[in-house]
Amino acid sequence: MGQQDLKQMDLDFVLHTYARNDVHFVKGSGARLYDSKGKEYIDFGSGIAVCSVGHGNARLTKAIYKQAKNLIHTSNLYLIEPQARLAKKIVELSGYDMRVFFANSGAEANEGALKIARKFGEENGELKRYQIITLDSSFHGRTISTLKATAQNKMHQYFGPFPDGFVYAKDLNDVPNKISNVTCAVLLELVQGEGGITPFDKAEVQKLAKILKEKNVLLMVDEVQTGIYRSGELFASQVYGITPDVITTAKGLAGGVPIGAVMTSLKDIFAPSDHGSTFGGNFLSTSAALEVLEILFEHKQSGELDKTITYFTQKLQDLQKHYAEIFTQEVGLGLMRGLRVRDLETLTKFLNATFEAGVLVLKSGKNTARFLPSLTITREEIDEGFLRIESCIAHL
Amino acid sequence: MGQQDLKQMDLDFVLHTYARNDVHFVKGSGARLYDSKGKEYIDFGSGIAVCSVGHGNARLTKAIYKQAKNLIHTSNLYLIEPQARLAKKIVELSGYDMRVFFANSGAEANEGALKIARKFGEENGELKRYQIITLDSSFHGRTISTLKATAQNKMHQYFGPFPDGFVYAKDLNDVPNKISNVTCAVLLELVQGEGGITPFDKAEVQKLAKILKEKNVLLMVDEVQTGIYRSGELFASQVYGITPDVITTAKGLAGGVPIGAVMTSLKDIFAPSDHGSTFGGNFLSTSAALEVLEILFEHKQSGELDKTITYFTQKLQDLQKHYAEIFTQEVGLGLMRGLRVRDLETLTKFLNATFEAGVLVLKSGKNTARFLPSLTITREEIDEGFLRIESCIAHL
Ligand SMILES: Cc1ncc(COP(=O)(O)O)c(C=O)c1O
Ligand SMILES: Cc1ncc(COP(=O)(O)O)c(C=O)c1O
Repeated sequence: MGQQDLKQMDLDFVLHTYARNDVHFVKGSGARLYDSKGKEYIDFGSGIAVCSVGHGNARLTKAIYKQAKNLIHTSNLYLIEPQARLAKKIVELSGYDMRVFFANSGAEANEGALKIARKFGEENGELKRYQIITLDSSFHGRTISTLKATAQNKMHQYFGPFPDGFVYAKDLNDVPNKISNVTCAVLLELVQGEGGITPFDKAEVQKLAKILKEKNVLLMVDEVQTGIYRSGELFASQVYGITPDVITTAKGLAGGVPIGAVMTSLKDIFAPSDHGSTFGGNFLSTSAALEVLEILFEHKQSGELDKTITYFTQKLQDLQKHYAEIFTQEVGLGLMRGLRVRDLETLTKFLNATFEAGVLVLKSGKNTARFLPSLTITREEIDEGFLRIESCIAHL
Repeated sequence: MGQQDLKQMDLDFVLHTYARNDVHFVKGSGARLYDSKGKEYIDFGSGIAVCSVGHGNARLTKAIYKQAKNLIHTSNLYLIEPQARLAKKIVELSGYDMRVFFANSGAEANEGALKIARKFGEENGELKRYQIITLDSSFHGRTISTLKATAQNKMHQYFGPFPDGFVYAKDLNDVPNKISNVTCAVLLELVQGEGGITPFDKAEVQKLAKILKEKNVLLMVDEVQTGIYRSGELFASQVYGITPDVITTAKGLAGGVPIGAVMTSLKDIFAPSDHGSTFGGNFLSTSAALEVLEILFEHKQSGELDKTITYFTQKLQDLQKHYAEIFTQEVGLGLMRGLRVRDLETLTKFLNATFEAGVLVLKSGKNTARFLPSLTITREEIDEGFLRIESCIAHL
């Protein structure tokens, strides 16, 4: 379909909630995407950290095909083998002694976390502790409650009354100041994905984890974006050497098949009918996720993932040094990386120029170019992407 | 995997939010499911109205395979052709002049509806009208806000503070009594799916629709379970001859691939960044949904769907008459049907007996056996299912 026709169809029939770029892709292969005019792009965004094993991955395609042919979905009223296997795999790969609930998105995973926190705060059937502390510049989702959990005032328009019980801390050090006798949990990203790709300090995170443990306040880590080997480990929590009470994840888990997960060491927090989801944990999404985790585990074990992280980071650092008048800093963790750009105007120019040159780079926060390549990206694809970036950067 | 091993794995690694039956399926074909011991079942539940085109549907499998191979997901920052096509198709098949937003579940679709209602109630940036009326015995989802929208007190434990602004009406006639100068919307199912399969009266619904229009209060219909030809038309709203302001749907839309949708005639209610979803409307889920709608549209056009509805209903009515001491009434709409069972004890026995005999039937409300067969179920499969039911019913 022609670009103009599609654009018109989208404007006519889809609610205008996205500021879309003027492009549509028709095929992907590895870290490459092809638009309707045949132009090739190196994808350094992966659908915002979703396409963890790249586009058109043959193993993932086969797993999806096999499962779709056999059985896409049954109700959660019956046992679902790949669901149980996936829960076991996530738990074992993470090393966290937890149980898992499957949902269909990051927002839904976080709704599960909020419900766990609230039920934890209840005692003898009464809600004693209900406040959940979240951090400035966080992002937790688009449902009414996860919007309110997102500590950005501009997100709290129009859709109220929002639920009470959310308290915002300026930064990690401010969290203890916000703890009261009605605090049940803290929810945070270890590297804020939408808020500008700033990894929190490891020692500070560990200190906070200790304080929360002492105060019997849950530490809930939103790994919707940092999870599924994006940090170099299955979860960024492992890199930080902490043991959260609750972890949520989504995005990269099934390589693009919608899925979310919340896991907790409070193994018996939910009783039947406390929570649920029609699609959550069904055959298709969990079989896809099992294959994705298998691929990524092998990639990690072989040493390739770590090498890719080193290689990609080096490329970014070289770029930053070379163009220090444009990029003030290189930041990030694993394959979740950013370049701070001198000002918003330059960032916009940079994103437009890279797009024109055939590289997809994302924005994060106010002044950060965000890089979330697929975890299986090859050196050749990385080289090609950076070549294209270099080719256009002189014209900024 | 053996049944006992799987059960133990599920208990060990999955949070206990479902009261699972002791069975797991390994393969499906049409309306037939096969468990790990090779036993065959006729599936009259379809994963709770999800597997709209049956299990292992060759056309759906092919569509999923083709799309997965090519491209599973890109970000909503770019145009997505099957998303725009799907929005157009839903709008055109429904005849409602609306725009669509795609989410990943019924709960997420309803979150979208709640946000539309709230933004509609706002004037000049201030929230003037915010109350949303919902109906006793309704079910709208498991997020914190959709739980509160669900007008069942037992759902409002543990997870508060819930958002304010939900008002419950006893029944349709009670809705006008609950309208105040801060009411912005009414959200209701036309046939309550979890609340016992009772279609509301058409004339009463139309009368209410007229009152709401006069009072400028939105009519929002939750078609998560009734939608996607389950009622005999794409939406039950069409059967009722009403034009809602907002419709939500999910379950059967992509035949088991997680997806949800909210559509509204308030075409410009959302501005960019008011709402969003990482996975929502991606290539895989919308390509699957396009194929499902194509299959079901053909099925409807050929007259087969209507014939199947008539045939299935007749079978249920015969059963009811024949065993009037067990089944007090036959109820429902389209292929969303129920048998009222004399008491809960008998219902439990009936469900267990049919399961043993190789038929999957669901429970709804307090005393209803619920039938949600795939819309493409064949006469042979229906006959076989009812034969098995008859064979065990004598022993109740
Ligand atoms: C950290 C974090 N949490 C939650 C979400 C919400 O996820 P979803 O869009 O799948 O609902 C996102 C999405 O960007 C995210 O980055
Ligand atoms: C009428 C209705 N609305 C909403 C939902 C929630 O849908 P989901 O489980 O996909 O979130 C359901 C699920 O059963 C439903 O029947």
